[in-house]
Amino acid sequence: MSMMEDILENQMIERIAKNFLKAPHKINEIHETDAELIKVGNGYDHYLAITTDVLVEEIASGLYDDPYLIGWMLAVVNFSDLAAVGADLLGLLISVNHPPDISEKFIEKLTEGISAACRQLNTFVLGGDTNQAKELFLSGCAVGLVPQKSTITRIGAKPGDRLYLTAPAGLGSIFAFLQIAGQNSQLPGSFYRPIARIGEGKIIREFANCCMDTSDGVIHTVDTLMRLNRCQFVLDDDWEQVLHPMVLQVSKAQHLPPWLALAGVHGEFELCFTISCDKEESFLQEAAKMDWKPLPIGEITAGTGVSIRTGKRLVPVDSTSIRNLSELAGSEPKAYIRKLLEIGHNIDI
Amino acid sequence: MSMMEDILENQMIERIAKNFLKAPHKINEIHETDAELIKVGNGYDHYLAITTDVLVEEIASGLYDDPYLIGWMLAVVNFSDLAAVGADLLGLLISVNHPPDISEKFIEKLTEGISAACRQLNTFVLGGDTNQAKELFLSGCAVGLVPQKSTITRIGAKPGDRLYLTAPAGLGSIFAFLQIAGQNSQLPGSFYRPIARIGEGKIIREFANCCMDTSDGVIHTVDTLMRLNRCQFVLDDDWEQVLHPMVLQVSKAQHLPPWLALAGVHGEFELCFTISCDKEESFLQEAAKMDWKPLPIGEITAGTGVSIRTGKRLVPVDSTSIRNLSELAGSEPKAYIRKLLEIGHNIDI
Repeated sequence: MSMMEDILENQMIERIAKNFLKAPHKINEIHETDAELIKVGNGYDHYLAITTDVLVEEIASGLYDDPYLIGWMLAVVNFSDLAAVGADLLGLLISVNHPPDISEKFIEKLTEGISAACRQLNTFVLGGDTNQAKELFLSGCAVGLVPQKSTITRIGAKPGDRLYLTAPAGLGSIFAFLQIAGQNSQLPGSFYRPIARIGEGKIIREFANCCMDTSDGVIHTVDTLMRLNRCQFVLDDDWEQVLHPMVLQVSKAQHLPPWLALAGVHGEFELCFTISCDKEESFLQEAAKMDWKPLPIGEITAGTGVSIRTGKRLVPVDSTSIRNLSELAGSEPKAYIRKLLEIGHNIDI
Repeated sequence: MSMMEDILENQMIERIAKNFLKAPHKINEIHETDAELIKVGNGYDHYLAITTDVLVEEIASGLYDDPYLIGWMLAVVNFSDLAAVGADLLGLLISVNHPPDISEKFIEKLTEGISAACRQLNTFVLGGDTNQAKELFLSGCAVGLVPQKSTITRIGAKPGDRLYLTAPAGLGSIFAFLQIAGQNSQLPGSFYRPIARIGEGKIIREFANCCMDTSDGVIHTVDTLMRLNRCQFVLDDDWEQVLHPMVLQVSKAQHLPPWLALAGVHGEFELCFTISCDKEESFLQEAAKMDWKPLPIGEITAGTGVSIRTGKRLVPVDSTSIRNLSELAGSEPKAYIRKLLEIGHNIDI
C-alpha cells in the first residue's frame, strides 16, 4: 500500500497506528473503509459499523461559525462514514467541549442542529459527554449495523467500472471559499447543509464494487480510491451535470475554473462509488424506486492516476499535490486557497 | 429525578440533552448507567454498551502531563464505563487532536500508553481520527457487549444492601493533590495507573443490585447512587481498609484528613456497587475464583444522604457542596483544592 504513503495525512495516521495491534474481530484494514467493521459475536449476521470524527479545525478556522450548522455537521460527518459502508444507523454519541463563557443560546442552537440532522435520518443521539475547554470542539461517534452478506469497502474498483456520485458535487469547496473569503453574507443559511446518504448507501452496498464519501472533496476521494485499487480514475468534464447549479453560478461570478470546486479539501458528503457495467441497469432500476437518480461522472481504466477527459484529451490531475496542500498550508485557510487557485489556473481544462 | 438537578454538572447535561429525542432501542434513561445500553437487532441476545469520554481538562490543568499516562488514561476512562455495566470489550476508537508542533516522541509515548492499556485488558484500538488543534485533547469511544439477561445499571440499591468497592480507593485524589501542588517529583511513574475493572464487572453484573465507577471519586459516586436510588449511603470509617496504603501515608505526611481522599473529583476507576445480604456469600465465592477480594466499605439504609459512621456517630457529609465545588472553582485546580480542604477540616471525622 506504498502509494498511500505519498499523502502526508496518511503518514501521521501511520505514526499513530503503528503501535496498535490489529483486532482479530475487525474486518477491514486501515484506510480500507470509511467506518470500522467489527464482528460482534458468533451467530449474529451483522457487522457493527463504527466511526469517530471531531469538529475542531472547521470551527477554529471560522469555516463553521453558525452553531446550528456546527451541530448539523457533527452528525453528518459521522453518519456519512456509516453511509459509505451501507450501514443501518443505531445512533450517535456526542461530546460537547466548550469555553466556560459559552452562551445558553449557542448551546441551544448547537443541539438543535444535532437533533435536526438526526431526525432527518430517523436516528438518535444515544448519549455523550461534556467538558470545559479553551476552544470549542465537538467529537462524535456514530454506530450502525451492516449485513455481513452486503459488505462494501473502498476496495474493489476495476478497469471498465463506471464511476458514480450520489448527487452533483462541489458545494463543500464553494461554501469554504466564500466563507473564508468573507463573501458569505449574501448566501441563504441553507446554502451548505449536506445530508448523509444512508438510504442510497443501502442500495449501493448491494450493487457497487467500492464506495467512499466525499467528505474531503471529490478529487481527494477518487485519489484515495485510485491508490487503494491501483486503477486510473477518469472524470468527464461535463460540469453542467457533475457540479451543483450554485457551484456553476459562483464559479462563473468569481472567475474560478469550475472543476476546482471538486479539488478543495472540504467536501459535500456525497457517496462516490464504482459499479460494473453488467450491474448498472438493475442498480439504476433499484435507485429509481426511491426517486434517486445516481450521477455518472466518469470511468475506471487501466493504469494509475486521476485524469479529466476533456474532448478527446485526457488531462492528468496532480492529485498528490492537491491532497498534500492542506497539510503544507497548516491551519491557514487563505494560504491554502491561494495555492489551490495556482494549481487550478495552471491546468489546461 | 429532581435530586439530580442539585448538581451543577447535571444542569449542563440536561441543557444539552433536552433537545434530543429518546431512542426507542436505548435501554437506559439519562444518568442511569455509566455506558449506554443499546438493543442492536431482533434475535440477538446482547446489548451494545457504548460510551465516549474526552481528555481535555486533565491535560489543560497539568493534571496529566506525561504522554504515556495521557494515552493510558484515554483507554481507562472509556473502558471503565464499560466495566461498570459489566460489558465484554469489543475495543476503542480514538481521536488524537494535537498542536502542529507536537513531537514524534510525544506521539510515540502517547500511543504506547493507549496500546499498553488495551493489551492489559486483551482488547484493541479499532480505529480513529486525527486533527490539528490549538490545545492537545484526546477523545475516545469504547464499545462492548452485555448479555441481556445480566444487565446492571446504577439503579437498584435498597436499604439493607452492603456497599462495596473493587479495591482500596483514594489514589486519584492524592495523585491530583500532589501533581497540582508540584510535589510529585518523588513519586514513582506508576504511582497512579488505574485499571478498568472489566473482569470484576462481569462478576458484579451477575450478583449486584447497582454499579458505577469511581471515575469522579468515591463521594461523587455514592452521592449519585444515593440520588438515583433515594437511599442513605453510610461509609465505615475504617480508613486502614478503605484507603490505598499510599493514600494513608501521604495523608499523614501532608496532615490531610484521610477520608478527604475519597472526596476529590479525580478518582481511581474502581467499581462501587451494592449487593443484597443473601447474595453476598455466593458473590464472594465467585470473586475468590479470580483471586479477587471485594472490599466492603459500608451499607445502605433508609433515608437519603451520604454519611460516615465513626464509632456510634453517623456524621453527615455535605456531598452536594463537595460535588459542586469543581464547577464553582472553574478551571482553577488550586482554588478547588483549597475549598475542598476547608470542607474537610470543618467536618468532625
